[in-house]
Amino acid sequence: MKELKNGKYLENEINKANEYYLKNNLALIYKKPTPIQIVKVLYPKRSRAKIYEAYYTIPSTTDYNGIYDGNYIDFEAKETSNKTNFSLNNIHNHQVIHLKNVLIQKGISFIIVYFRYHKQFFLLETKYLLKYWENKELGRKSIPYNEFLFNGYLILKNEDGVLDYLKIIQKILNKI
Amino acid sequence: MKELKNGKYLENEINKANEYYLKNNLALIYKKPTPIQIVKVLYPKRSRAKIYEAYYTIPSTTDYNGIYDGNYIDFEAKETSNKTNFSLNNIHNHQVIHLKNVLIQKGISFIIVYFRYHKQFFLLETKYLLKYWENKELGRKSIPYNEFLFNGYLILKNEDGVLDYLKIIQKILNKI
Repeated sequence: MKELKNGKYLENEINKANEYYLKNNLALIYKKPTPIQIVKVLYPKRSRAKIYEAYYTIPSTTDYNGIYDGNYIDFEAKETSNKTNFSLNNIHNHQVIHLKNVLIQKGISFIIVYFRYHKQFFLLETKYLLKYWENKELGRKSIPYNEFLFNGYLILKNEDGVLDYLKIIQKILNKI
Repeated sequence: MKELKNGKYLENEINKANEYYLKNNLALIYKKPTPIQIVKVLYPKRSRAKIYEAYYTIPSTTDYNGIYDGNYIDFEAKETSNKTNFSLNNIHNHQVIHLKNVLIQKGISFIIVYFRYHKQFFLLETKYLLKYWENKELGRKSIPYNEFLFNGYLILKNEDGVLDYLKIIQKILNKI
């Protein structure tokens, strides 16, 4: 079996954080299942359906959502090997529209980006993503690393080794 | 291809409602993709991964979640042909725990049940589901139809033919 996706490192870190938040009753945030288009299903054994043909489909929303102390949370997580910027090709148009819709409904939405070269995790609120997204036909098709440094939040691991992005969400909520 | 699941009628009604809410900027509620355990993936063509072997897995959360005017919404939807009660076998333990956790995080959680015999849709808040769930080892393993009549909310279709469960959510919010 060939590995399908690169960049499972960040996903694993976020999943570990979510399990930690769940266990400690801090937040309830889950990764959605990967959307699959199922073509052929059979029943080789009575007990269990077996899927014989299926394909990955483009997600219409983001990978993660949930609730933290009454606040709706929604985000997409991506990794990049690039040293100086994060390419907007990493994100689908549907996902950006969804992140924007979350803001309209008074939720908290953002992206988390892991820069492999710098070994740094950043949370960037949707408003800053939109600034680049909405101008990408005109000029640059990426978000500079400096934007993450200036307007994003560096996410650190806590004393339990957990990538503590909830701490950043709390900072954002304190500003609202 | 054999039909895998009965009871797509309610799912279709809810999906139509969610599309309507999305189109009119009223709420942002989505059905999560069906969780699948993927065993074998190959690349018959360079462009597209093909899944050759996969299985349905038991969901760890509910089918639907989202946001409505700053409120986190989370629910499970089920149909029954039974005239007098809704069997608790229709729901997994993990899902009940999840619905309860949503309450702890100050979200809105419930089940929607369609009684085929009565052609009626009901919304029942998690607190009433829990009353039966937590006593199911002792006695009855179902929620009586009358419980839905007395403590649930009958969901009606609006003038556009949409199953308007958001109206019920607003009623619940008005009471809080």
